[in-house]
Amino acid sequence: MNLVVQKFGGSSVKDKERIFNVARIITETYQKGNNVVVVVSAQGDTTDDLIEKALEINEHASKREMDVLLSTGEQISIALLAMAIEKLGFPVVSLTGWQAGFLTDSTHGAARIRRINKERVDNELSKRNIVIVAGFQGINRYDDITTLGRGGSDTSAVALAAALHADLCQIYTDVDGVYTADPRLVPNAHKMDEITYDEMLELATLGAGVLHNRSVEMAKKYHVNLEVLSSLTQNPGTKIKEVVKVEKMLIRGVARDNDVARVSILGVPDQPGIAFKIFSKLAACKVNVDIILQSIGRDNTKDISFTISRANKEQALEIMGDLNQQFGANGVVCDDNISKVSIVGAGMQSNPGVASKMFEALSEANVNIQMISTSEIKISVLVALEDSDKAINAIHDAFDL
Amino acid sequence: MNLVVQKFGGSSVKDKERIFNVARIITETYQKGNNVVVVVSAQGDTTDDLIEKALEINEHASKREMDVLLSTGEQISIALLAMAIEKLGFPVVSLTGWQAGFLTDSTHGAARIRRINKERVDNELSKRNIVIVAGFQGINRYDDITTLGRGGSDTSAVALAAALHADLCQIYTDVDGVYTADPRLVPNAHKMDEITYDEMLELATLGAGVLHNRSVEMAKKYHVNLEVLSSLTQNPGTKIKEVVKVEKMLIRGVARDNDVARVSILGVPDQPGIAFKIFSKLAACKVNVDIILQSIGRDNTKDISFTISRANKEQALEIMGDLNQQFGANGVVCDDNISKVSIVGAGMQSNPGVASKMFEALSEANVNIQMISTSEIKISVLVALEDSDKAINAIHDAFDL
Repeated sequence: MNLVVQKFGGSSVKDKERIFNVARIITETYQKGNNVVVVVSAQGDTTDDLIEKALEINEHASKREMDVLLSTGEQISIALLAMAIEKLGFPVVSLTGWQAGFLTDSTHGAARIRRINKERVDNELSKRNIVIVAGFQGINRYDDITTLGRGGSDTSAVALAAALHADLCQIYTDVDGVYTADPRLVPNAHKMDEITYDEMLELATLGAGVLHNRSVEMAKKYHVNLEVLSSLTQNPGTKIKEVVKVEKMLIRGVARDNDVARVSILGVPDQPGIAFKIFSKLAACKVNVDIILQSIGRDNTKDISFTISRANKEQALEIMGDLNQQFGANGVVCDDNISKVSIVGAGMQSNPGVASKMFEALSEANVNIQMISTSEIKISVLVALEDSDKAINAIHDAFDL
Repeated sequence: MNLVVQKFGGSSVKDKERIFNVARIITETYQKGNNVVVVVSAQGDTTDDLIEKALEINEHASKREMDVLLSTGEQISIALLAMAIEKLGFPVVSLTGWQAGFLTDSTHGAARIRRINKERVDNELSKRNIVIVAGFQGINRYDDITTLGRGGSDTSAVALAAALHADLCQIYTDVDGVYTADPRLVPNAHKMDEITYDEMLELATLGAGVLHNRSVEMAKKYHVNLEVLSSLTQNPGTKIKEVVKVEKMLIRGVARDNDVARVSILGVPDQPGIAFKIFSKLAACKVNVDIILQSIGRDNTKDISFTISRANKEQALEIMGDLNQQFGANGVVCDDNISKVSIVGAGMQSNPGVASKMFEALSEANVNIQMISTSEIKISVLVALEDSDKAINAIHDAFDL
């Protein structure tokens, strides 16, 4: 008997029809003789509705109380999904995050899973119950309710699969797998049957949007067999495994991320310790920095640029404004009218022709490159937002994906 | 420093304005130097909305999953109320039923409180936090979520007041106290300053609707000082205590209950054991019987009548139909177009004039009495539903309440 963990997002359970569709996927898996544990998110817009209720009362409500409020969203989902499975005549039990043993740290709104006490889930599985678990939530050491923040339900599913040593963890989404590029942007994009954790990680980080990077990181760490597939089609999805046939795949996909802002501080003194001061200050304020670029010094000054998520723009500008004064620099500039376009593939660095091929494609498409960043398995460039679609299509064609 | 437990019902927190009104009552109590623990129900129609969601999915959903679903209603309330108190600048923490230590039996949908682990609440009070607790809910020994059923939040409040040895338990409702009759029905009704537990119990059982009898029973058992008052006025409420000046009060109030159906089985054999068979069968099927009346036997047969809540009508008729065959009786009749009207007051039985005065008032108002039942402190009569208003007004006037 195999143990399968299945995760369904909010749009997969947004109404009665979708809930029964999901219930049928679950019970079919169960009928094949598998033990089934399901992780589910809050229905459709529930979380947004709850946030609106909170803002109406208090725009600066504590994160602790926000977690008490938001965790009800998944609790409603698990009950309704369990009721649908009861209706289909199968044995089922729903569990909230704390009932399923999710223990987290105390960072309300963005908690990290510390441990899963799997006794209750194991116990329900031994009774051949289908187990429905609320994603996105847990409790801290004081028994306070916490939520995991963005991508939390994916992370819940992978963590549970790891704890239970599940044979497979299926992430159901509204796309039917991982594509060589976003099919809504690149008509020629096609679905990949297999991909490695590292490649998936780069694609996730780059905003391919299928899986949150936290969950892929965790799957890689605990060797969880992941599969991404659609709850609305019967198509096979994409399997994410440790090692796939590496020699065959060079460029695996193209992705873009429009949630990017670039901040530059101009004319800072060309002295040791400047970069440290800037990035330690940003880190202390929890501003996540992606690409960093430093110009070659001239006239004893240099320019430092970096990219961040747009949500952090105001905060980053405030910090950089202070540092600008402190360093006696020539000012801070910011551009959020940009997009990050990347290609991902194992063994890229040993193929020097890849980067130039990408830059050639962009050049022919008349797309100006604003910044370049490379890693072992990806090359990212910043381009103007309006060039973004053109850029990924040009790259997709150039590499014949 | 006194400890006050305050309970607010769903209509008291139905929207933003009401929530802040309640938050002000709480923080004013806190500012007077009291420790404050608050029990709150689900907002306005939340519970009904959740039930509707469930029925859409499965009309026969398990009670366990209904409890998982419904308990989210109070969890939303406690978070929003805590956020409002945060907004007013006071230290506050919200706790779900299980976090507040409510341990119940396993009767999902109508669980009884077994014990309250008060460590968490004590701990929060010692930090001078205002503690907001979700009413109506707890967990059973398997850590499954349970709900307490009708009147559950009142019961939660009284149980918590008992466990914490609170100095006072204030039940805030949409009326400002206990009246000699329902003021919406009897214009001359007036509010009582004090009343005993037993009298309150009879009024609650009779459908006066202010407090559920479970909560009054518990208050009597654990000597909890109760006060019923309005969250919308500043008026003093009604205090419910062990012993009030008994000699002064004979008739304390008039109440009526329209949720009544009368079932009669006609011509059953006049033999021992018949009544036992009927009422043990009804009890086994959880049909609560209120008044029982047995006619004097003639021709070796007798008629047995009893009253039940209307919700139990179909079930009772089914049971009685079976027994009718088994006994070879003359049929079962049912009437739910009736109302139970009662007067309540300590020392009533030692005043034989009371009953006759009540019957006289009804007679003068031309109200036919269909059934009579008496106890130490109450007299109830069944009348036709359309005579109900007339009856309570006539009685109220006759006793000069």
